[in-house]
Amino acid sequence: MIRKVHIAMHRLVYQEEIKMVKWNNLDTLSAFANLEKAAKVSVKKEMAGENGALRVKKYSVPMAEGLAYNYAAKAVNDELLDAFQKLADEAELAGKFEELYNGEVINTGEKRRVLHQLTRGQLGNDVVADGVNKREFYVAQQSNIAKFANDVHSGAIVNGNGEKFTTVVQIGIGGSDLGPRAIYLALENWAKATGNFKMEAKFISNVDPDDAAAVLNSVDVAHSIFVLVSKSGTTLETLTNESFVKDALKKAGLDASKHMIAVTSETSPLAKSSDYLAAFFMDDFIGGRFSSCSAVGGAVLSLAFGPEVFARFLDGAAAEDKLATNRNVKENPEMLDAIIGVYERNILGFPATAVLPYSQALSRFPAHLQQADMESNGKSVNRFGEPLNYVTGPVIFGEPGTNGQHSFYQLLHQGTDIIPLQFIGFKNSQIGTDVDIQGSTSQQKLCANVAAQIVAFACGKDDENNNKKFEGNRPSSIIIGEQLTPEAMGAILSHFENKIMFQGFLWNVNSFDQEGVQLGKVLAKKVLAHDTDGALKEYSDLLNI
Amino acid sequence: MIRKVHIAMHRLVYQEEIKMVKWNNLDTLSAFANLEKAAKVSVKKEMAGENGALRVKKYSVPMAEGLAYNYAAKAVNDELLDAFQKLADEAELAGKFEELYNGEVINTGEKRRVLHQLTRGQLGNDVVADGVNKREFYVAQQSNIAKFANDVHSGAIVNGNGEKFTTVVQIGIGGSDLGPRAIYLALENWAKATGNFKMEAKFISNVDPDDAAAVLNSVDVAHSIFVLVSKSGTTLETLTNESFVKDALKKAGLDASKHMIAVTSETSPLAKSSDYLAAFFMDDFIGGRFSSCSAVGGAVLSLAFGPEVFARFLDGAAAEDKLATNRNVKENPEMLDAIIGVYERNILGFPATAVLPYSQALSRFPAHLQQADMESNGKSVNRFGEPLNYVTGPVIFGEPGTNGQHSFYQLLHQGTDIIPLQFIGFKNSQIGTDVDIQGSTSQQKLCANVAAQIVAFACGKDDENNNKKFEGNRPSSIIIGEQLTPEAMGAILSHFENKIMFQGFLWNVNSFDQEGVQLGKVLAKKVLAHDTDGALKEYSDLLNI
Repeated sequence: MIRKVHIAMHRLVYQEEIKMVKWNNLDTLSAFANLEKAAKVSVKKEMAGENGALRVKKYSVPMAEGLAYNYAAKAVNDELLDAFQKLADEAELAGKFEELYNGEVINTGEKRRVLHQLTRGQLGNDVVADGVNKREFYVAQQSNIAKFANDVHSGAIVNGNGEKFTTVVQIGIGGSDLGPRAIYLALENWAKATGNFKMEAKFISNVDPDDAAAVLNSVDVAHSIFVLVSKSGTTLETLTNESFVKDALKKAGLDASKHMIAVTSETSPLAKSSDYLAAFFMDDFIGGRFSSCSAVGGAVLSLAFGPEVFARFLDGAAAEDKLATNRNVKENPEMLDAIIGVYERNILGFPATAVLPYSQALSRFPAHLQQADMESNGKSVNRFGEPLNYVTGPVIFGEPGTNGQHSFYQLLHQGTDIIPLQFIGFKNSQIGTDVDIQGSTSQQKLCANVAAQIVAFACGKDDENNNKKFEGNRPSSIIIGEQLTPEAMGAILSHFENKIMFQGFLWNVNSFDQEGVQLGKVLAKKVLAHDTDGALKEYSDLLNI
Repeated sequence: MIRKVHIAMHRLVYQEEIKMVKWNNLDTLSAFANLEKAAKVSVKKEMAGENGALRVKKYSVPMAEGLAYNYAAKAVNDELLDAFQKLADEAELAGKFEELYNGEVINTGEKRRVLHQLTRGQLGNDVVADGVNKREFYVAQQSNIAKFANDVHSGAIVNGNGEKFTTVVQIGIGGSDLGPRAIYLALENWAKATGNFKMEAKFISNVDPDDAAAVLNSVDVAHSIFVLVSKSGTTLETLTNESFVKDALKKAGLDASKHMIAVTSETSPLAKSSDYLAAFFMDDFIGGRFSSCSAVGGAVLSLAFGPEVFARFLDGAAAEDKLATNRNVKENPEMLDAIIGVYERNILGFPATAVLPYSQALSRFPAHLQQADMESNGKSVNRFGEPLNYVTGPVIFGEPGTNGQHSFYQLLHQGTDIIPLQFIGFKNSQIGTDVDIQGSTSQQKLCANVAAQIVAFACGKDDENNNKKFEGNRPSSIIIGEQLTPEAMGAILSHFENKIMFQGFLWNVNSFDQEGVQLGKVLAKKVLAHDTDGALKEYSDLLNI
């Protein structure tokens, strides 16, 4: 009873705060009920013959930077697209995004604004918090980082022996690791091929001591600059690994404070410490998993590739953000992708989504999306804390093609569950070195494979022998670009961040908190304090803690 | 009609061939029907208080090499374990394994024996094919590889300039890549810490030209030896990447045939080519995803760590294989794990399984298991080609802990689907370098976290605020070991290979073919030959092929 009153009051106060839009559960929307009743589409039937060709031409939305989101092989048709538009309108997706970028407290659980889009551009009104214009704050941080990175590259900032730094090592976990690491790998070869490569980057994340030890063994610490990334300044893994690194620096006879910089919030214990050569700031309005465009990604990527490359990456993200404001689902790739995903999850009943980039450079991008998506929308209560009667975020997994084709694609083609697929492909490679074998280059073979897979999944193939039969009807979409450049990477990152945001709006969850990570932390502390009983004590004993 | 007769005849002939055991669908077994009716177990209730402590002590099976499989936090009790035993007996799991290791044609689709266990030990009768004792054949290959590796290490085999090789580069995809790569990463730091590290290994897999180009840019080709791995000698990606490498060697003024060895079948076009310094053989009885213990893993791992280390790895796998022959599910970790997985998938209805090693060294082991499991059991027809009325292989995904805790664990704890979890943890690190922060080492923190997670997932936590509430009841098991040594790695690999095999027996699928990968290959060839129409032509045009 008390709890119910609490929720009701919370809801009342909250609706008062944000007057413009209504936050309702998906299953209360009449557009959703209509979508449930709408006739289903057979991907196999629709994608056959000339109709398939027409769909590929028609069901494509331009993205920023020359990219396109093609959804021809999804289980949709014009009637469903109309129903999607009605759902987008009734759920007020564009209005909710507007509230968000205008600085409303969308992260209700933690009572925080959600401003990661503001790190790359101004979409709406000025956002002022505690007297600070937040766009100006983020731009100032980028500019501080740019100056610092340029000084490191020019040799104005050097190590204790007056020598240039050659390597940057990011110390961070979760959002401070996966996004920056995925983007570093995505652009490393591009940077080397275009003369934009400044310094090698390495990453230490796991509290497993072998992670830090192996990275430290692989770098020349005397010429390495370490970026400690923790918003709160209290992340166990990161602080432990900082000590690990400081130990190594000390053993090498080096002054740690000349080798470390911090990326943190202004209120954290790291902010004004003399332990760091410099500190760059983010704030509570940037969730870890959405922090790649803030100082969290900015420091390491600007050091690795130069601040101009990082700025180009931000421009790509900003350009895609603008497209995401469109109220027309057929012109808004993020909103459309989000609705298709919810349709597949809540109406067609598919449990997971595979992300399959046909680009080795995107090898860790699926791991980043796994966090961004599953941590945001893996929730069982709505934004008012009320239990939900429908499923929310799916499992996200993936590996680059063509590698995946020789691995888990068997299940995707012939398994008993249908797993929707998100392909990504580029016409051109990054390095440009290639060989012509049997009349085609490797890049052509790569692209031929992704085209073939889309059609194989959609259309299947009949066979006398059931074991060689492909049912088809496996829906997929593809993002196609010219080349994986910094701008394209920014646009693709923005696409998925905004897709996740729109899905959170549809499910009516708070996509910007992560209370589900707390209990493990609390119990781990108990184990380390030997304050355990029952099963926890037994496991601790088994593991010799 | 014709198809039905065909299937019936196939079944008849087949049952004739393998007389000892009966191959029936899971849903025809009375033990399965009884299991469906059996009372469900609440993990949350069972794992609370002192009963939880008792379960942790009791529900543990010794594995080889001092490892243990602990299933206290699974949704089982003594009654269910009895029902599992009945299912194992009725499904004749031990008998089917016996047929397999005695050399029967278990891979019915391709009409092949399944002999990967024989690469590491002899479990049953001599297996003779075409007059060759297969155990002797595999041992001979290992011994040839050992001699070759020792010659490379000693300098008896050198490059064109008479210099020692320093790097080995594996060229292979799917099973020729994921397993060997995962095991190399698993043992790299152990080898460095114990003086067993001989040569760095790199891997080229993707047909994406940037994969080969980046690896070639990162090695000293003049001192690199390349291992070309393709059973058939016809894998598109691998042959393309071979040409890529040969091009690079030629451009560097080197004789490619002095830098390349082949791992292939004796009947492949690569087997007797003068293009290679040496050739080592596998055969059709070793599936790619089960080939890590054959020459496919043997060449690269023996070159990287020395043949003695590879032999220790095989010993660990062989020891675990022996345990897998036990008819008692409570003494057979592989059979038990398999049945629990099928119970979770087909009776409790869980769609996916996460593999969560608390060991950075196992960073790519989940990707290997993703192939091994999903390619084996992602099937919709039984071994006779008859459609199945139940779900088979789940989605498998995972990342090392503690990294995953800061990523997708939110969904695992508080999402709307329950995902069973497979933890792996070791008491000791591999390198041994560690720091003591706040009274505990990093290794202790790592272990404290995995202990805490198991209990958090099982027991949950109530809270006034639904958003901070954990339902618990998330089942998990853990494999615990002293340290990730070559023997432990072998035992763990064997555990999962045999688990997958037993699950295939339960689902009555052929776990050893992969017809689902064929259609994509056929269509990709059409694209490259410009022999397309409809949607396939449009996608080809979009991708500039």
